[in-house]
Amino acid sequence: MKMNDITASVIESFSQTEDPRLKAIMSSLVKHLHAFAQDVKLTEAEWFRGIEFLTAVGQKCTNKRQEFILLSDVLGLSMMTVALNNERPDGCTESTVFGPFYVDDAPHYENGDDVSNGASGQACLVHGTVKNSDGQPVSNATIDVWQADDEGFYDVQKENLNHAQARGVLHSKVDGSFDFKSIVAEAYPIPMDGPVGTMLEATLRSPWRPAHLHFMIKADGYETLITHVFKKGDAYLQLDPVFGVKDSLIADWVNGEDGLTTLNFDFVLNAAN
Amino acid sequence: MKMNDITASVIESFSQTEDPRLKAIMSSLVKHLHAFAQDVKLTEAEWFRGIEFLTAVGQKCTNKRQEFILLSDVLGLSMMTVALNNERPDGCTESTVFGPFYVDDAPHYENGDDVSNGASGQACLVHGTVKNSDGQPVSNATIDVWQADDEGFYDVQKENLNHAQARGVLHSKVDGSFDFKSIVAEAYPIPMDGPVGTMLEATLRSPWRPAHLHFMIKADGYETLITHVFKKGDAYLQLDPVFGVKDSLIADWVNGEDGLTTLNFDFVLNAAN
Repeated sequence: MKMNDITASVIESFSQTEDPRLKAIMSSLVKHLHAFAQDVKLTEAEWFRGIEFLTAVGQKCTNKRQEFILLSDVLGLSMMTVALNNERPDGCTESTVFGPFYVDDAPHYENGDDVSNGASGQACLVHGTVKNSDGQPVSNATIDVWQADDEGFYDVQKENLNHAQARGVLHSKVDGSFDFKSIVAEAYPIPMDGPVGTMLEATLRSPWRPAHLHFMIKADGYETLITHVFKKGDAYLQLDPVFGVKDSLIADWVNGEDGLTTLNFDFVLNAAN
Repeated sequence: MKMNDITASVIESFSQTEDPRLKAIMSSLVKHLHAFAQDVKLTEAEWFRGIEFLTAVGQKCTNKRQEFILLSDVLGLSMMTVALNNERPDGCTESTVFGPFYVDDAPHYENGDDVSNGASGQACLVHGTVKNSDGQPVSNATIDVWQADDEGFYDVQKENLNHAQARGVLHSKVDGSFDFKSIVAEAYPIPMDGPVGTMLEATLRSPWRPAHLHFMIKADGYETLITHVFKKGDAYLQLDPVFGVKDSLIADWVNGEDGLTTLNFDFVLNAAN
């Protein structure tokens, strides 16, 4: 059987698939997967190394560790998917990767509260506003924030910690503003103790994510915004292993004369269709 | 960041990779993976379904079950890899998929022995010769044979069986010939209790592999041959879920007047470079 015949036979095998979207996805996947193998003339030993690698990625996953999301992140597939699904008018805040460390039951806080909840790091204030693309305030938006501590670990990565740290849910005020206390974001390496880390080492890629603070903002009538704020001047802004940095998302944690460090960042939501 | 910029950034991230082959493979993989996502305009929900699927495939793997090889098989990647690495002169026996059920310590048998070793099925004789492309006999070739029983199970799939059945290792005689007793091959479905089975069901694909007998033949000075002999007249020859069938590999298990069922198949090895 010639190679093109193999590809055609596999695509034909999906001819009875009733769901047109599933059929389109599987057919395209087969086409591109086979093109990759032909492009590099994949050897049988390389094919088997790939089987072993993917098996190890799956077996590294637990309910607190998603190694396939990490793989998608470091191959840029996550950012490609973000780009395909979040095209917005100029002026709206850009999206970036979700990452593997969000949890959906973070504690709720009032404006002014300290979300660090004991996480180690340099204290700071974060404030900003949520607006729409007409410049009007968006009140009562649900603002999820989460970040690593100054050792580079999220609370869910700590074996002996059983409460949330450096994550929380707030709501914007009537004027769209919000503020909370937390710790200054610091650069950290992505988890390197699994097969994705082995791949980064083998390819001499940098594992360091530039310092960032995660936001997910939801409000009725608007598209959900999933993004980070990155720290201006971070040494790794050009080397983010998950390709999440966008210039419009870089901001300064300012050391004020009063001894306080403050981040100010305003978000602009896009109206839902 | 524009989509083409994302792809270029990811490929650029491998610029320090020292192994030129690893660099070429990773770069091509990224290019084709991103092209797939763009081609279908992958949604975030579909991306996450893909993450869940691959995770489940990895977690189904054990030391006796290789679900990623099964996935590669049903997506035709295994046959594509076989095709890319086993181009041979006309007249040499063609290769097909290795499959997930080979074991490397099968019992050794003498010519004439019964390799079924108690496996259920219709008794038969198998004989043939191993030759080179000049028609000369290849003696002392190592012939690994393995097959499912008439319920569709290989020995390694049986929880309570702790010895080999319907598999063994023989050697060709001085005239290149070999013969052994076994059971007639029957069609069987690939394992459907994992995520690959779920995918075949969702896409309405047939899980039935046409009846076949596996061979791996090794001899000094020749390329190793990994192949099957398929049973003429099998209803699933056009529907093999792993795309392994080649016309030249189809042969008849003949019911003789003496009441014996016999398969005869000759193998032609390609000289090693």
